[in-house]
Formats: sequence, structure tokens, C-alpha cells
Amino acid sequence: MQRILSTELAAHPYEKVLVEGWVHRVRRLKSVTFVIIRDAAGLAQVVMADAGELTEESVVSVVGTVTPNEQAPGGVELTGPEIHVHSAVDVPLPFELHRPALTASLPTQLDHAALALRHPARRAALRISAAATAGFRAALEARRFVEIQTPKIVESATESGANVFQLDYFGRPAYLAQSPQFFKQMMVGVFERVYEVGPVFRAENSDTARHLTQYTSLDAEMGFIADHRDVMAALTGTIAGMFGAVTERTGFAVPEVPAEIPAVHFAEALKIAGAPADEPDLAPAHERALGEWARREHGSEFVFVTGYPMRKRPFYTHPDPADPSYSNGFDLLFRGLEIVTGGQRLHRYEDYVAALSASGEPLAAYAGYLDTFRYGMPPHGGWAIGLERLVARLIGAANVREVTAFPRDPHRVAP
Amino acid sequence: MQRILSTELAAHPYEKVLVEGWVHRVRRLKSVTFVIIRDAAGLAQVVMADAGELTEESVVSVVGTVTPNEQAPGGVELTGPEIHVHSAVDVPLPFELHRPALTASLPTQLDHAALALRHPARRAALRISAAATAGFRAALEARRFVEIQTPKIVESATESGANVFQLDYFGRPAYLAQSPQFFKQMMVGVFERVYEVGPVFRAENSDTARHLTQYTSLDAEMGFIADHRDVMAALTGTIAGMFGAVTERTGFAVPEVPAEIPAVHFAEALKIAGAPADEPDLAPAHERALGEWARREHGSEFVFVTGYPMRKRPFYTHPDPADPSYSNGFDLLFRGLEIVTGGQRLHRYEDYVAALSASGEPLAAYAGYLDTFRYGMPPHGGWAIGLERLVARLIGAANVREVTAFPRDPHRVAP
Repeated sequence: MQRILSTELAAHPYEKVLVEGWVHRVRRLKSVTFVIIRDAAGLAQVVMADAGELTEESVVSVVGTVTPNEQAPGGVELTGPEIHVHSAVDVPLPFELHRPALTASLPTQLDHAALALRHPARRAALRISAAATAGFRAALEARRFVEIQTPKIVESATESGANVFQLDYFGRPAYLAQSPQFFKQMMVGVFERVYEVGPVFRAENSDTARHLTQYTSLDAEMGFIADHRDVMAALTGTIAGMFGAVTERTGFAVPEVPAEIPAVHFAEALKIAGAPADEPDLAPAHERALGEWARREHGSEFVFVTGYPMRKRPFYTHPDPADPSYSNGFDLLFRGLEIVTGGQRLHRYEDYVAALSASGEPLAAYAGYLDTFRYGMPPHGGWAIGLERLVARLIGAANVREVTAFPRDPHRVAP
Repeated sequence: MQRILSTELAAHPYEKVLVEGWVHRVRRLKSVTFVIIRDAAGLAQVVMADAGELTEESVVSVVGTVTPNEQAPGGVELTGPEIHVHSAVDVPLPFELHRPALTASLPTQLDHAALALRHPARRAALRISAAATAGFRAALEARRFVEIQTPKIVESATESGANVFQLDYFGRPAYLAQSPQFFKQMMVGVFERVYEVGPVFRAENSDTARHLTQYTSLDAEMGFIADHRDVMAALTGTIAGMFGAVTERTGFAVPEVPAEIPAVHFAEALKIAGAPADEPDLAPAHERALGEWARREHGSEFVFVTGYPMRKRPFYTHPDPADPSYSNGFDLLFRGLEIVTGGQRLHRYEDYVAALSASGEPLAAYAGYLDTFRYGMPPHGGWAIGLERLVARLIGAANVREVTAFPRDPHRVAP
């Protein structure tokens, strides 16, 4: 017999069907037992006189008759069932999955990820994550970006120096890539517009609700731009595509992405946030203040901050031609949290040589990367979206670990 | 003026247009100079009296009039051009890009990847790779597989023991994941069907034309199967979807994927390959012989080998119920090369305990993974496709490095 999903039951009244899944709940009443089966699509109620030893999370096949019952989930239930058990759970569960919310602490959930992720709320968050990722790709493919795969093992701890994981590469040191930045710029020389969805690694020994040592970076880079505003426009369309895909695929209600997201210059942002005029960067409290300001003044959950000071941005950042102490770099804040960093990059070889020399870096460590600019590059820029941060902010999760299947942090490297 | 792509020129006869790209070639004749511009879409010819100092690979904007000329690529050329140079190349190129094939040796190409990848042939291979990846996702989404992202940093060098890269994780050892195997099985408990496109890492110190230390693995795993044949059927449909996407997106002619790919049992495969009956695995020469056999006997570029001996497969492999010395594991050969490994997995907790105990492994190292089976799992299985191998075989590249943007091997970790 062909299996059907729980959500398809109502279309088969009075038919004998096969449903398969996990025993989500067993409710033993005086004269009857309700068994709720959970499958990939949803829940199905099975009615039986006696469920015997059946335990929650056991995996079963159930053949039964679809019988209308207004009080059952979906308006139908399975009656007269024959149950086959594929694997029986014979130990107590560390926590129950059938409550509306998981009551176990987050560390306990993470320790038992294989079980906790089965909870409908945890599962829904990961579906939203998958939908946002699909929307990212679709939005960029429609703008003729080409997908690339780049190395996660790199020769030198360039780009930022600190915060990289070192590994033993056949007896030599090598490092885990903190971002695909250099590679995606190199690939602009090949395809003009590229994107990558992949893991990035940060050896930051900070245990906060918004940091992970591995996270999923949604990177894009595009050539033949006028300046960073072309990048911001492409990013805005991409975020709109991601949110559209979330609603379309999961039904989750997303906030509106304005056709033009409000943008404030860094100097103005400091004033709005009530920060001293000589602050070189925005602290989390400043970001929250800017998020409130954008909602209040523009009715927007998003706000761009542009023109970050050059001294706080990486060496490949393009300065603002009108005031070179500021950059053509930007951040995008969503509900008062930075979820994207981007900007225009330098594109002339001599500018790279000058920038690296000024920072005292040896040019030789960047040889393969500098080839890109020595052999001709257009004005270009791009961005990196932190997927987990975006999804956490979207669904109102307090901690990025709630939207990551198997998070990694300084104290957690398992399961 | 709005930029148009080289391939759109013919639709704008006698109009003044803006084209941007790299100077692919400068041909200085006696009374005229032809400048070929390369952009993301193709090539455009510009005719001028004198191109001055213009050098190949410089990046330019050209405003000119679209003029029909049957001898020009695409049947049109740009006349009366004004050229603006964004970045000028003032060093000799290590090799020329405008020849039909790159004449530089592969090591030289890889040393100068930023330049070599701009060659239309290298670029086309990466586009085919991107198309195959998109086809993989689309085929699986249509079968209700859900995309997952899993950790690349793991606590213990399990799964195979050898061939893992060790890294310094805040003063403790940790390892780069050789595959998402454990995690995708855990996620079958959540979504029933999952897939992941991501990097995997192998510390194999072998410098062959088909091995890389990082490659892109196209992984899938599905629950509620009867046995490995359900996995093979899903894989066949997925490969067909990938090849369909390659042709649709790039025009590359792909071989037919049979609706049912021929399958031979391992014991039979040894006979066909002329190997001794006690061989525990297939050598590359045996795979080539099987590829020739499949083409000759079945007109198929593909052949499944099923029932590999249990002793050569990992501990989570499901045995063949009819003869437990053989497994429900399979490989898929494409043109005589293994490009996919897959099979049915164990799904009962007690089977895992027995398998790990038999191999002398400490159960504690697998605690988070074993949770999955302790708390109920359906019969399941899956596969891993090596993207670079598949694409190399498809386009006839002799070395996987030709279809990898920035390959990593024991002797190469840059650029």
C-alpha cells in the first residue's frame, strides 16, 4: 500500500490508508487510546481500544480507515488500525515533545539535539532557514549571479589575523577560512556576479547569544557597480526575495521589506543613537536605538548604516571619494541587530598595494589574491548575510543556537 | 546609459549602447584595430582606428554604435567607440586567454587561478558545476527533501579514524568533518528526507587526478524506505534532474540517464571485471571494465554495483538480509568511475551497539549520534555524490582540478 502523509488524510475519507511516522503522543483514557503520529508534514490521530506497550517516539506504520471526526486534528482520524513497529523506544525520553513548547533548558536541548530538533517549533525554525536560503539563491539567480564553491582551508591567517582556527595540514599550519571574501572577489573577474552559501569559521572565544564558531554565510559579490548603493539595492531585492520565499514555503508571516530601505550615514547614526561623535563603531545598544528610530521614523524593520569609518573596516574597503576617512561600507540592521555587512571594495592593484603597505602586511601573503587586481578588475562590491542571525531575528528567537541544528561555540563541539 | 550584455547587441542594430567587460584580445592591423570585449555573457567586437596603449585584461566601458557585420561574432560590432578604462593592466600576462584552449600547464593555471578561470573553457566548466548543483537541489525539493546545514567541526575522529584534519579548538583537539553522514541521519528523524550541499575534508596524502582534500559533497538521506533500491531510484531521478539542468542552463549535451540504471551485484561485478572472486573491493581498472560492460551490454553510461562486502563498508551499513556478509550498500559508476556511494543504513539502536562493539569502538564517542536511534528511527538510507568527479567525467576533464576553482591537495593550499 502506498504511504500517504498526515496532511493528505482528509482527502481520503472512509478509505483504508497507510500512514508512517513517530509516535508523538499516547493518551490512554479509560475506554480508548489516542495515538498521535507525527510525520514530516504534520500530525495524525489514531484511535484504538488498547495501544499495548507503544511508547512515544517509536517509529510505526499504521494501516487504518480515515474516519471524519471534527475534534481530531485535520478533522479526520484513523480507526480500526493495524500497527507495525519499526523501532521501539524502551528508555524514558529526556523531555517530552508533545508540549506546545520545549520545557527543557537550551543546553539540555542541544545535548539531545537528535530528539529536540523533532519538536515542531524547532523543526519549523529550520524549515524557515531552508526557505530563506532557497529564496536567497532564487533572487540572485534571477539577477544572473552564478553559484561558486570556495576553499575553507587557506594558507595564511590573513584578512583579520586573529580569530582563525589553525589546523595541521600534512605537517604544515593552515587555517579555516573566516569568509569567502577573497575568493568571491576573484570570481567577480570570472562571472561578474557570484554568490556562495557556505560555512564560515570564527575562533572568537565569546559565548554570547549571537555568536557561533561556525555559521552559514550568504555571500554575494558583483562587478560593474557605480558604488556601494548599487550593492545595497541588490541586497534589498535579495532580502525581499528571501522573505517572500519564507512566507510562500512555510506560511510564516514576515515583515515588509521596503522597496528602498532607509539609510543613515555613520556620523548621523551616532547622533541618533546618542553616542559620542568620536565612536569608531556601533555598540549593540546603538544598533537597538537605530532599529527603534527606523521603526518610529520610517515604519521600517530595516535600516542601512553607511559610511563606517575606514579605520574600522578591512583593508579592501573602498573609501568614500568625498571624505576618505569614511568608507563606502555599510551594515544592514534588522530589528536593531546587524545581520549583513557589505560595501564597495578597492578594484585597482595600486590601491591594494598602498592599503596593504600602510597596514604593514607582507604583500607576498596575498599574491594569488593580488593577481586578481593586477590583471584587471571592475568596480565591485558585495555583502555577507549571517543566516542564523537573520532567522533568529525573524522568528523572535533570543539565541542563534535555537535556529541552528548543531551549534558550535567555544564550549560546544558535539553532537 | 544602461549597460547591455554582449549577447544582447544584435537586438539593438544602429543604436548607441554601453558595453562593459575585459579586453579579451587586441588585434592591431595596418589600418584598423579590433578589440574583443569579454563580459559575463560572451564576446563583443569593437572596431577602432587606433586602440592606443590598450592592453588585454584591462577593464573597460565602451559606448559605441551597433553595426551589422557578418564576419563579427554574433553578426554585429561596435563602431565609433568611446572607451573608458576602469583598470589598466600594465604587466605581461603569464598566459593568453584568447586561444581556444589554455596552453599553460595545469600547475601554472592553478598558480594564477584568478586569471586562468577567466578562460571561456574553464569558466564553462564551473557554470556546468553550478547548473548540476541547482539541478540537484531542484530534483530533491520536488521530492520533499529539506535542505540542512551541518557542522564541519566535530569532536572526535570517528567514522573512519584515519584521514581527518585535526585543528586547535581553543586549546583542545577537534577535527574537520569527512562527511555529513551522522548529521544527515540525525536529521532524517526531523524531516524524513534531507539534503546538503557542502564541503567535506579528507586528509588523504595521495596526489591523484581524482582526489582533493576538500571537495563538494551532494548528500541526501531519506527515511521510510523498503531497502537500498528505494534510495537508488531516488538517486537515479536526481541525477536525471542534474543532467537536465546542465543542458537547460548551459546547453551542454549530456548523455541519457536511463529510467532504470543497470545494477549488478558485487559478486557478479568481480566476474565481469575479471577480478578474483575474493577481492574485497573494486580497483579503478575494475570500475573501467564495468563501465565498458554497461555501455556495451546496456547502452548505459551508468551502472550500479550493489551488495559490497560488509567488511569494506562503514559500521552504519545495513547488511543484506539474504546474506549478511554482503551489504545493502551500493556505488554508482559513471563512465567507469565511482561518483556516488550510498546504501541503506542500520536503524535500530541495538544494531548500532552491536556494530560498534564488534569494531571495538567506544560507544561514548558516539553518544549524540546514538541518541538518534535510541529515540526511534525508520529504515533509511542515502548517498553522497562527489560534485567535482561527476563534472570532470561529464565534460571529459582528465583531472578534477580542472573543474574546481581553487583546488586543495597535499601540495596546494593557495591561492
